[in-house]
Amino acid sequence: MEGLAYSPVLLTDLYELTMGAAYYRQKMFAPATFSLFIRDYPPHRAYFVSAGLDEVLDFLASLNFSQEDLDYLDGTGRFSQDFLHYLSQLRFTGHVSAIPEGRLFFKDEPILEVTAPIIEAQLVETYVINAINLQVAIATKASRCVHAAEGRSLVDFSLRRTQGAEAGLKVARTSFLSGFDGTSNVLAGKLYNIPIFGTMAHSFITSFENEIDAFRAFSQVFPENTVLLIDTYENMSGARNAAQIAREMAARGHSLKGVRLDSGDMAEISKKVKAFFDAEGLKEISIFASGGFDEFKIAQVLKEGAKIDAFGVGTKMGVSADAPYTDMAYKLVKYDERPVLKLSAGKKTLVDEKQVFREKRDGKLIKDVISLRREKGSGEPLLKPIMRHGERSEPPDTLEAIRTRFREEFEQLDDCHKAITNPKPFPVELSGGLQNLQEEVVHEVKEKELGES
Amino acid sequence: MEGLAYSPVLLTDLYELTMGAAYYRQKMFAPATFSLFIRDYPPHRAYFVSAGLDEVLDFLASLNFSQEDLDYLDGTGRFSQDFLHYLSQLRFTGHVSAIPEGRLFFKDEPILEVTAPIIEAQLVETYVINAINLQVAIATKASRCVHAAEGRSLVDFSLRRTQGAEAGLKVARTSFLSGFDGTSNVLAGKLYNIPIFGTMAHSFITSFENEIDAFRAFSQVFPENTVLLIDTYENMSGARNAAQIAREMAARGHSLKGVRLDSGDMAEISKKVKAFFDAEGLKEISIFASGGFDEFKIAQVLKEGAKIDAFGVGTKMGVSADAPYTDMAYKLVKYDERPVLKLSAGKKTLVDEKQVFREKRDGKLIKDVISLRREKGSGEPLLKPIMRHGERSEPPDTLEAIRTRFREEFEQLDDCHKAITNPKPFPVELSGGLQNLQEEVVHEVKEKELGES
Repeated sequence: MEGLAYSPVLLTDLYELTMGAAYYRQKMFAPATFSLFIRDYPPHRAYFVSAGLDEVLDFLASLNFSQEDLDYLDGTGRFSQDFLHYLSQLRFTGHVSAIPEGRLFFKDEPILEVTAPIIEAQLVETYVINAINLQVAIATKASRCVHAAEGRSLVDFSLRRTQGAEAGLKVARTSFLSGFDGTSNVLAGKLYNIPIFGTMAHSFITSFENEIDAFRAFSQVFPENTVLLIDTYENMSGARNAAQIAREMAARGHSLKGVRLDSGDMAEISKKVKAFFDAEGLKEISIFASGGFDEFKIAQVLKEGAKIDAFGVGTKMGVSADAPYTDMAYKLVKYDERPVLKLSAGKKTLVDEKQVFREKRDGKLIKDVISLRREKGSGEPLLKPIMRHGERSEPPDTLEAIRTRFREEFEQLDDCHKAITNPKPFPVELSGGLQNLQEEVVHEVKEKELGES
Repeated sequence: MEGLAYSPVLLTDLYELTMGAAYYRQKMFAPATFSLFIRDYPPHRAYFVSAGLDEVLDFLASLNFSQEDLDYLDGTGRFSQDFLHYLSQLRFTGHVSAIPEGRLFFKDEPILEVTAPIIEAQLVETYVINAINLQVAIATKASRCVHAAEGRSLVDFSLRRTQGAEAGLKVARTSFLSGFDGTSNVLAGKLYNIPIFGTMAHSFITSFENEIDAFRAFSQVFPENTVLLIDTYENMSGARNAAQIAREMAARGHSLKGVRLDSGDMAEISKKVKAFFDAEGLKEISIFASGGFDEFKIAQVLKEGAKIDAFGVGTKMGVSADAPYTDMAYKLVKYDERPVLKLSAGKKTLVDEKQVFREKRDGKLIKDVISLRREKGSGEPLLKPIMRHGERSEPPDTLEAIRTRFREEFEQLDDCHKAITNPKPFPVELSGGLQNLQEEVVHEVKEKELGES
């Protein structure tokens, strides 16, 4: 909700409100539990990273309709005065359990469960999915880049091509959460206290009569912080100019921090540039690369022996280009103490309030078990009660704490589940109690609705 | 900028500001022209739809640094007090030419050219690309869905899985621009005066003891506006319940508007459901379909003879899933009267200030010619001067006017360029003047930087 100037309660699908009106007319105010989960993995994924929860809790805690919102709804001619009056007093009064940000989770596992009077719990569906879907997709994508980079530094360069400015902020935050070192996004630096990085653009070079004039001008203004973009005309002529500038800087007691490559065959060019600098006695110049990087291209150039110290990772991470959404759903699993589900082809849901237990051995994640919330399980329960009666149970985690939590758990996940292509599925089981209840409810529903027995 | 609570001037890459500091130190205040264009088509595209301009003009007209912004920049330790003082007084004072929203354009064509003192023109790069990239991608994707639907009605259902809430608003606006009939996004309905639509969710059905109870309850609250979701348990049992409700509504003088299918083999199910309603004498019930639709799935089910009257189009359109970004760039083409370009592998730019001329014959688009702005051309010049000295030359177009403009021009584009797969490229030529100048500048640069002659 960071940065939205309007009341976000209308950031919802119309049907959430029309269903609300029907619940209201039927006097349906009993508690409902909705589960948020992802039905399946996008290609080449075998885990997800939890992110976006903080935004959801802010949204829930401040939910209310302004008079302007109500006037708009009234003007649609769809809603009774009674129901609009009810909405004018509506606040979110429910409970929320969730897997904290920065934790790993797997398909079918509930990341968040909302229990509230059904109108409240229904109304927030669209916003809850919107906030968490994007941040999970990006946190997961960014973690794959971090894994592929094998310890090299990564910087988020995506702002210009993220899907909107708000997405750009969330991508900067979320990629930092997953282990990026910072971002080029200045506002994200300010809002989230993330390190900011920058080099120079081709326009800077072409605005000068000669490339070396541009290099020299920049190095004089930023003697401690100059990374020269060397591909505007041709990489090796750029490298020769950069070497000249490095010597001039050294003569003034400074040093050239690095050069940036932005086009061409990155493995080959980086090796040539590195060899050239080494031969010139300029071993300390870092090589920074950008241009279409994602986990696949990072892994590829490193396999080819690229001499690259750090990557600027832009568009493909910032929109999660190969998987720009997750198959995330928010489904009713219990109403008025009755466990419920739908049977729609390929879209079955797991009934009732749940918990996920995570088992470890020798510091490694072994398996998860999805259980009924009332069951006992072994291992760590992942869903924590984080909101009671519409109020946060605890203050928000800091971004640094979430980042550390992620790094520590990611190390405990076996590499076979993190492979960039065709990772191995992580074992997730259903508890006996959940399996039994699921079968029972499916049987009941089929009997009742389809006449099967 | 709609809906952002913060000053957007920091929504920029750090390098725009560090380059600004270097231009400032070099006393480089001469006018620069930057061109915004798309280097290539994503797969299966042969045109783009202009969108996002209005947001850019708002941004430029209100550009300024707040004291808080300046304090943050000061705190980074990167900028001199002189430069920060300069920023405190900076406004956008330049000129903008652009292709209006709703027009078609093609790769390599400048959609927008900014001419301003170089620090101003450089600083706005990130935001300009961010705003226009997303809206062009979505307007283009949505137009493909409209084309595939062959006159059937389309509604934007994407809010829950757009990349953030701001993206959800822009998708609603932009898909309407491209010919959608409305959106499920209530806030977009309010902000842009777009028709809003909604049906019901599976949770509504499962919260009742029986499906038919849920159907009946909804039809009583919305007697004029009921679309029943029939796949919660099984489509044909749902259709039988819907038929029962349709008869009950008819007995009260109302009529059931439609049913919604949301899973399974849509062509087959829609034919069965339609045949069932016809046999029951309920021909007037519309069939609405949702669930993973985009232009490819719409075309596929229609080819298979689906009996569908309207589509809810969600995630895949809302993130432009098969092409979630465009290869859009904002490049310096002239500085201080000198035409400039870069030579980076695969990323060449067209020099100098430009115009695009569009030729028609018999009400059909024939070809475009990219020319130098100072050249005469035949056909309609597409870039219009829309901002002078930082002020809009004309009031913003209404969304309805843009929508009409798009519909009329889209009809003039031959179907071969609109094909959902493997469309034929549209002819775009370079003028003689542009070709000559381009060759001249490439030659000069190679001589100067690479020692070639």
